[in-house]
Amino acid sequence: MALEEAGADYIDVGRESGKDGLGIPAITAFLDGDETSYPPFAPPFLKAGELVVSHVANILQFLGPRLQLVPEDEASRFWAHGLQLTLTDFVAETHDVHHPVGTGLYYEDQKDESRRRAQAFHDERLPKFLGYFEQVLANNPAGDAHLVGAKLSYIDLSLYQTVAGLRYAFPKAMAHLEPNIPKVTALVAQVGERKNIRDYLDSDRHQTFSEDGIFRHYPELDV
Amino acid sequence: MALEEAGADYIDVGRESGKDGLGIPAITAFLDGDETSYPPFAPPFLKAGELVVSHVANILQFLGPRLQLVPEDEASRFWAHGLQLTLTDFVAETHDVHHPVGTGLYYEDQKDESRRRAQAFHDERLPKFLGYFEQVLANNPAGDAHLVGAKLSYIDLSLYQTVAGLRYAFPKAMAHLEPNIPKVTALVAQVGERKNIRDYLDSDRHQTFSEDGIFRHYPELDV
Repeated sequence: MALEEAGADYIDVGRESGKDGLGIPAITAFLDGDETSYPPFAPPFLKAGELVVSHVANILQFLGPRLQLVPEDEASRFWAHGLQLTLTDFVAETHDVHHPVGTGLYYEDQKDESRRRAQAFHDERLPKFLGYFEQVLANNPAGDAHLVGAKLSYIDLSLYQTVAGLRYAFPKAMAHLEPNIPKVTALVAQVGERKNIRDYLDSDRHQTFSEDGIFRHYPELDV
Repeated sequence: MALEEAGADYIDVGRESGKDGLGIPAITAFLDGDETSYPPFAPPFLKAGELVVSHVANILQFLGPRLQLVPEDEASRFWAHGLQLTLTDFVAETHDVHHPVGTGLYYEDQKDESRRRAQAFHDERLPKFLGYFEQVLANNPAGDAHLVGAKLSYIDLSLYQTVAGLRYAFPKAMAHLEPNIPKVTALVAQVGERKNIRDYLDSDRHQTFSEDGIFRHYPELDV
């Protein structure tokens, strides 16, 4: 979303065919250490010239200044990165609702555990994380339209993607919670109206949510 | 460990008594947003002057250049931070072995789920993560004594702490695995011999592992 918002030139290597030296084989060569002395542990990673940067939060902190999607001052940059790492934790916990026993097993083999985990997630963690971002917007000295500073930054885009995923996975829970987080909801609506984001969401570069991804809609886990 | 290795001046606020405006109440005031417009979601966080930095990985990326515990060039810094975020993922998965259903419940209320999760952890994740760091040492163009560059960096200290925690939590599993990761084991031994680290480990500033922490020794989860 950061690359799309900024109109940057990029290739989503994993979604290309393997024919042109791209696709999954190109990614595997990096993970195996055949292409670099600095192999990431896992996707996603960004290659920019000779630089290889792993982890969404690290990629965004690399791209932020280059795409003008983070304020200039050091304090704002550490703050934005801390918020992104909080979203990382939030998304990991959301994923683990459908995979509490382990990522190597199918959901169907951990349905009972998932149901227990979903209860704890809905009772405590989901309202706590969303309420935190509502509070961050309320506290922002530059106004409540953005999470960091007075302009759009990458962390606003990341919150958009997280809320979109949560609405897909847990439509009932989110319908129940959203009246309590009006500033988050307004920010998400505002991001979704941006021209480059709208174009991206309508394009085939955008992957829709599904039960193969991080955010999965299993009705029995939506309270 | 980074602060101790560098001989930096710091206060571990949460372990002070509440009398001098320190202790848990001082931390709570930050989390509630009473002391800053930039409240972290959760501990740990670092306060350095007016700056508040959350998350271990973000704190270490802030401290690294200031304590000379990371190389100067940009590529090494993004690489070190990516490795730290990989350790973050590793430690989170290790924690979730004893808390698969949720952090809000006691271990005793999720023992069956923990046993299943431990199996998947020992079969796949533990050897995969440790093998990755062995490979990173083997690949390092500056030699296999350190993870990044030719000198000690904060990521070496973090790997030390992770391996120490794993040895405490899973002594049998680690005894079985360690012959396969000689470079990791050598680095951990080397870090443990450093004067400032030895002094720290022997001091009452150092918290020992226990069943209240991230790394817990439950014999039934050690395969």
